[in-house]
Amino acid sequence: MLTLASDFGTPYPAAMRGVIRRRTDADLLDVSHELPRGDPLGAAFWLRFVLPEFPPAVHCAVVDPGVGTERDAVAVRAGAHVVVAPDNGLALPPARALAADSSDGVDTPSSSSGIDVYRIDGFDPASATFHGRDVFAPAAADIAAAIAQPGERTVDHPSALREALEDLDWLTRVDDYVDCEIPTPTRYPAADCLAVDGEVLVVDDFGNAITNVPGTVVEAADRDRIRMNDTVVPVVETFADVDRGEKLVTVGSHGYVECDVNDGSGAASFGLSPGDVVRIRGE
Amino acid sequence: MLTLASDFGTPYPAAMRGVIRRRTDADLLDVSHELPRGDPLGAAFWLRFVLPEFPPAVHCAVVDPGVGTERDAVAVRAGAHVVVAPDNGLALPPARALAADSSDGVDTPSSSSGIDVYRIDGFDPASATFHGRDVFAPAAADIAAAIAQPGERTVDHPSALREALEDLDWLTRVDDYVDCEIPTPTRYPAADCLAVDGEVLVVDDFGNAITNVPGTVVEAADRDRIRMNDTVVPVVETFADVDRGEKLVTVGSHGYVECDVNDGSGAASFGLSPGDVVRIRGE
Amino acid sequence: MLTLASDFGTPYPAAMRGVIRRRTDADLLDVSHELPRGDPLGAAFWLRFVLPEFPPAVHCAVVDPGVGTERDAVAVRAGAHVVVAPDNGLALPPARALAADSSDGVDTPSSSSGIDVYRIDGFDPASATFHGRDVFAPAAADIAAAIAQPGERTVDHPSALREALEDLDWLTRVDDYVDCEIPTPTRYPAADCLAVDGEVLVVDDFGNAITNVPGTVVEAADRDRIRMNDTVVPVVETFADVDRGEKLVTVGSHGYVECDVNDGSGAASFGLSPGDVVRIRGE
Repeated sequence: MLTLASDFGTPYPAAMRGVIRRRTDADLLDVSHELPRGDPLGAAFWLRFVLPEFPPAVHCAVVDPGVGTERDAVAVRAGAHVVVAPDNGLALPPARALAADSSDGVDTPSSSSGIDVYRIDGFDPASATFHGRDVFAPAAADIAAAIAQPGERTVDHPSALREALEDLDWLTRVDDYVDCEIPTPTRYPAADCLAVDGEVLVVDDFGNAITNVPGTVVEAADRDRIRMNDTVVPVVETFADVDRGEKLVTVGSHGYVECDVNDGSGAASFGLSPGDVVRIRGE
Repeated sequence: MLTLASDFGTPYPAAMRGVIRRRTDADLLDVSHELPRGDPLGAAFWLRFVLPEFPPAVHCAVVDPGVGTERDAVAVRAGAHVVVAPDNGLALPPARALAADSSDGVDTPSSSSGIDVYRIDGFDPASATFHGRDVFAPAAADIAAAIAQPGERTVDHPSALREALEDLDWLTRVDDYVDCEIPTPTRYPAADCLAVDGEVLVVDDFGNAITNVPGTVVEAADRDRIRMNDTVVPVVETFADVDRGEKLVTVGSHGYVECDVNDGSGAASFGLSPGDVVRIRGE
Repeated sequence: MLTLASDFGTPYPAAMRGVIRRRTDADLLDVSHELPRGDPLGAAFWLRFVLPEFPPAVHCAVVDPGVGTERDAVAVRAGAHVVVAPDNGLALPPARALAADSSDGVDTPSSSSGIDVYRIDGFDPASATFHGRDVFAPAAADIAAAIAQPGERTVDHPSALREALEDLDWLTRVDDYVDCEIPTPTRYPAADCLAVDGEVLVVDDFGNAITNVPGTVVEAADRDRIRMNDTVVPVVETFADVDRGEKLVTVGSHGYVECDVNDGSGAASFGLSPGDVVRIRGE
C-alpha cells in the first residue's frame, strides 16, 4: 500500500500518481494535497495524526520548500511503515508515532527507537522544482514494489521490512538527518493552578486553531472555563455544548487543545494563526 | 465497494481511509468531502443525486453537526446498498432513491419501502468530535467486510444483504429514526398559469443555485421565459443558449430547476443562498 | 486503467465514478477536477503535462463549455493511450504528447502521427448539462472494459489497441475534428539578443504564472537576469535561489518559463492572468 501527501494542490499530484502506476500496482490512497504549504512542521503535525490510522504502508510525503537545493531525500522506516520525504524533518514526527504504535518494533542497538533513516540516491531529477514527480514518487513506488510479496500485500513485519530495505543499494542508512519536533508547551506547575504557554500549530479546514498543548493538561485541571489569551471561554466536549457562533475550547480528535467556534472559525474569532502564542490560565 | 462522503475538507478523511484499510481491502472511492458543511439536508440532496449512479455499495456519509451529542449512528439498507450515517436524516433521501432504483427490492411487511434502518452500537468513540474516524468509518468497513463474498465483490441482492446485516449483532433494526425530506415546493394550480414557490437547496461549485422545484413543473409550462423572483429570465436547455454573463434558468442534470449564469455565478447574480425563497411565475 | 479529469469541482465527479464502476472494475485514478474552468486550452496544457506520466490508460477528460450544443464526443488513440473528451480540441495536445512518447507508435498512411480520432455515438444523454456522466464516463468505461484482457490489465500495444477500437461499432474514425494547439511564442532572432513575446497559459495552485515560452529559449540565452514586461528579474533554477517574497523567473517542471515569487503568488506580483502577453527581453 502507498499513500500520497503533499502541499501541491492540483493537478501536480496527478503526475506523481502516473509515475507510481508505471512502477507498481500497489493500492494507492491520497492523504491530502492541501498540507500546510511550505510548512514541514505543520504538515508533520497532520501526518503524525493520520498516518498511524493506516495499516503498514509506504507513505510518500512532500512538503519541500527547499526543493532544488542540496537537501537530501530520505526513507524512514518506522515499525512496519516507511515514510519517503525530503530531509527537512517532515518524516520524523509521524515516524515516531508509527514506531510507538508498532507492537513489534525492531529493537537493535542501532535502532532502539524503532526508526531507521536511509538516504535515497540514484533518482536524478529532471526538474529543479518538482522532485515529488522526479524523486519521491518513484522512490516510494520502488520501495512498495520491492516489499510486495506474492500472495501477500506487503512485508508487514518490521524486521522483514528492514531486511528488504537493506537490500536496496540506492538506500544508505544514515545517522545524520534533519529532525523536527512538535514544540513542547511551557507549563508553570502549581498546586491548584492551570498555567501553560503554547502555540498554534495549524488551522484546520473548519477554522479550528489547533495548539501544541496536550488535552490532558486542560483535562487534568478539570475547569468549566479557562482564560485563553485575553478571553474567558468554556471548556467543552463538543461543539454542540455551546450556542452557534459561540467560542469554545475543546480537546480535538488529535488529542490537543483547540480554539473553536460552533459553526464558525475559531482562528478568526480568537485572532489566531499558526505560530501565534496561546497563554492558557485557570479562571 | 465502499464510498466515502463528508463535509470534512482535508486532511481528516485520510484518517477514515486508514481506519477502513485496516479492516477491509474493499474498493474505496470518494464521493466528496466538500458536502454542504453542517447541513444534512443540503448534503442529502447531493447524496440522493450521486449515490444511485453506483453499483451496490456501502456508502459512509458523515455530515454531523451534532457529533458528540446523544444522536445515534445508523446503517440504512436500501435495495442492495447500505448507507452508514449519523441519525440526523442524512441517509434517508439517498436511501429512498436507492430503493426506488432497485429492480429487486425486498418487499416484506416490515420493509415495504425497501428500506431497513439499523442502529449501530459497539463502536466506542475515542473522541467527541471525530466519529467519522471512530464510528462511521469502522462500522462501514465492517459491513463491507461482512458482505464481501469469496469470488464475488459484494452481496448484491437486497434479500441476501438483509440477511447478512441481520447476522451482525451490533446492528439493531429500529422503527424510530430521524427522517428528512427534501422540502416540496408549493404549487398554485391554474389552467394556463405557472406559479410555484420553492427554495434554494444548494449552490454548486459553478455557483449554480439549485432549487427544490422539479424540472417537470417548468417543462410542462413550456415557456421561453419565466419570472424568477423579480427577474424575467430565459428558460433554456443549456448554458450556451445565452450569451456569456447572461442569466438563465434551466433544468439541471439532477432534474431540478437551477438559476445559472453562462460562465458566471447564478447564486451571485440572482442574489440567492441555500434556504432562500424562489417564486417562479409564468410571464 | 482509467483516469478522470474535469473542471467540475465537487461532487459532480462522484456521479462519473459511479457510472464507471457500474461498467468496469478498472483501476480508477483522478487527475484533477479543478482544471481551468471552461478553458479547453488551459486544461489541455495540464493534460499534456501529466498524462504522459501514466502507463497506457483510458483518460476521460471533460472541460466542456459547449455541453448540450451540437459538438461531438471523441475518443483519440495516441500510442497505447485513449483520450475521451468533447470535440473541442481538449484531447489533441495531450494526445500528441502521448503519441510522441510512445516508442512503438502505429505508423500507417492514415495514422502517420500515431493518432486516430473516433467520433463517439450511441450514448443518448439524459441531461443537457452533464455529459460527463451521460456520455464521457460511460464511453471511457466501455472502452476500458473492451480493451481489458484476462490476465493482463489492458491492451498496451498501439496496434492491438487500434484493432480493439475498430471493433467497437459506436466508434467511427473521423478526419475532421476540432484541433487545438498550445500557441507558439513569437521570437525575434538576433545574434546576441533574447527577445520573445509569449502569453500566460495557466496560473497554478501556487500562483505561478506559466507561459508558453519554452524554457530552452531562456536557457540558451544564459542570462542571470531578464526583463519580463516592465520588470527586471533574476533567472534562477529554484525558488530558494531568491529571498522569500522576491520575484523570479524559472523553467518549471513542465519545461516552460514561469513567473514566480518565492513563497508567494507570481501571478499577483507580476499582475498576470491567463491570456496576458509576456514580453521577455535580455537585459
